[in-house]
Amino acid sequence: MNETKHTSRDILPEPTLRRLPWYLAYVKTLDSKHEEHVSSTQIARRLNVDASQIAKDLSFLNIKGKTRIGYEVHPLTKALNEFLGFKHRHNAFLIGTGSLGSALMRDLGLQQYGLNIVAGFDINPDVIGTAVGEIPIYDFKELAARQRSTGVSIAIIAVPFENAQEVANSLVESNIKAIWNFTPYRIKVPRNIVLQNTSIYSDLALMYNRMGPAGNNNKNSTK
Amino acid sequence: MNETKHTSRDILPEPTLRRLPWYLAYVKTLDSKHEEHVSSTQIARRLNVDASQIAKDLSFLNIKGKTRIGYEVHPLTKALNEFLGFKHRHNAFLIGTGSLGSALMRDLGLQQYGLNIVAGFDINPDVIGTAVGEIPIYDFKELAARQRSTGVSIAIIAVPFENAQEVANSLVESNIKAIWNFTPYRIKVPRNIVLQNTSIYSDLALMYNRMGPAGNNNKNSTK
Repeated sequence: MNETKHTSRDILPEPTLRRLPWYLAYVKTLDSKHEEHVSSTQIARRLNVDASQIAKDLSFLNIKGKTRIGYEVHPLTKALNEFLGFKHRHNAFLIGTGSLGSALMRDLGLQQYGLNIVAGFDINPDVIGTAVGEIPIYDFKELAARQRSTGVSIAIIAVPFENAQEVANSLVESNIKAIWNFTPYRIKVPRNIVLQNTSIYSDLALMYNRMGPAGNNNKNSTK
Repeated sequence: MNETKHTSRDILPEPTLRRLPWYLAYVKTLDSKHEEHVSSTQIARRLNVDASQIAKDLSFLNIKGKTRIGYEVHPLTKALNEFLGFKHRHNAFLIGTGSLGSALMRDLGLQQYGLNIVAGFDINPDVIGTAVGEIPIYDFKELAARQRSTGVSIAIIAVPFENAQEVANSLVESNIKAIWNFTPYRIKVPRNIVLQNTSIYSDLALMYNRMGPAGNNNKNSTK
């Protein structure tokens, strides 16, 4: 909970980082019920993660449980929220205000996790100058200028995947440092740019596949 | 492209299944430009995946490229779309019509990938009886009855994570066979239920972490 966490952040393994939000979700439910302590065994049983793994993961945050008592729920919740960056405000631009893009602009859930979409950008003259909720939509051509005036360093790509690479190139030229790509297109960026891919459609394909032919009683060809 | 694919589907490794939508996105862009052939080397260069891996992945679909010519773009696009289940209509219920839930109901993108949300469910009397777009919102209590009358077997969970497990239990009792969980909560379901987790917030945490303290010029504490 002090500056030492920044050094440990840099060496944090991705699987650990992926598990921390699970712990957070669980301890938040305990915190809301005013429970005071939770043991790693209890977390382990609930989340199907090894208790020793949990202890190891939490040690990256310099958090140690006490023998027989476990972790203090409230401080653990706070520390996880803080560590994961959810307690800081990160301003972001959103590119492509179509169905997925405007859905993300409307999703207040993102704000709870520290992501604050301050502007949308599009190339469609029909939507430029309008807004989604309180968030204005600007001409994509203005992006570089608006980046300079606001210092925003995160951009979300929600354009048709055919345009994803072209948009990414413009973002990099416009001094954007981190790109959250919601298209299934594998865009390429220079090494100094943080690229995070989220493809909800590939999760969908995984689910369909696991359902298999047996799960197809509800599956009708649209052709 | 015949029934043999169902047997291969069952043994498909997850990493392969995760790469197939990337190939699809890329070949779709080629198809829209009316390009006729693409080599695995060309796909490899574009997507940073080994050419031999691509050939292996596509062999699961019984697709083989021709020496020096490569794959035929249009049939490959069709086969990938079909194989991934995106060309079939899968009806689904959505539980929790808050910000994320209603965003998903509005996201027409899901329909392009074969997911057709036919109804939303909520416990909030203010939204029960209303609709998002054309999709009606019903009382969550009616879920079992509506499942029986429609045969829908997929449900999307977009409720506050505190209620995720409880909702999942009700879904399983209501004969839902596949659950797409958008909450960061690790719900538990019986082994015969397909569970797909999509946590966009954990992707967000990963991105924040990779940005590191150096990327924090745009990061202000909200406290």
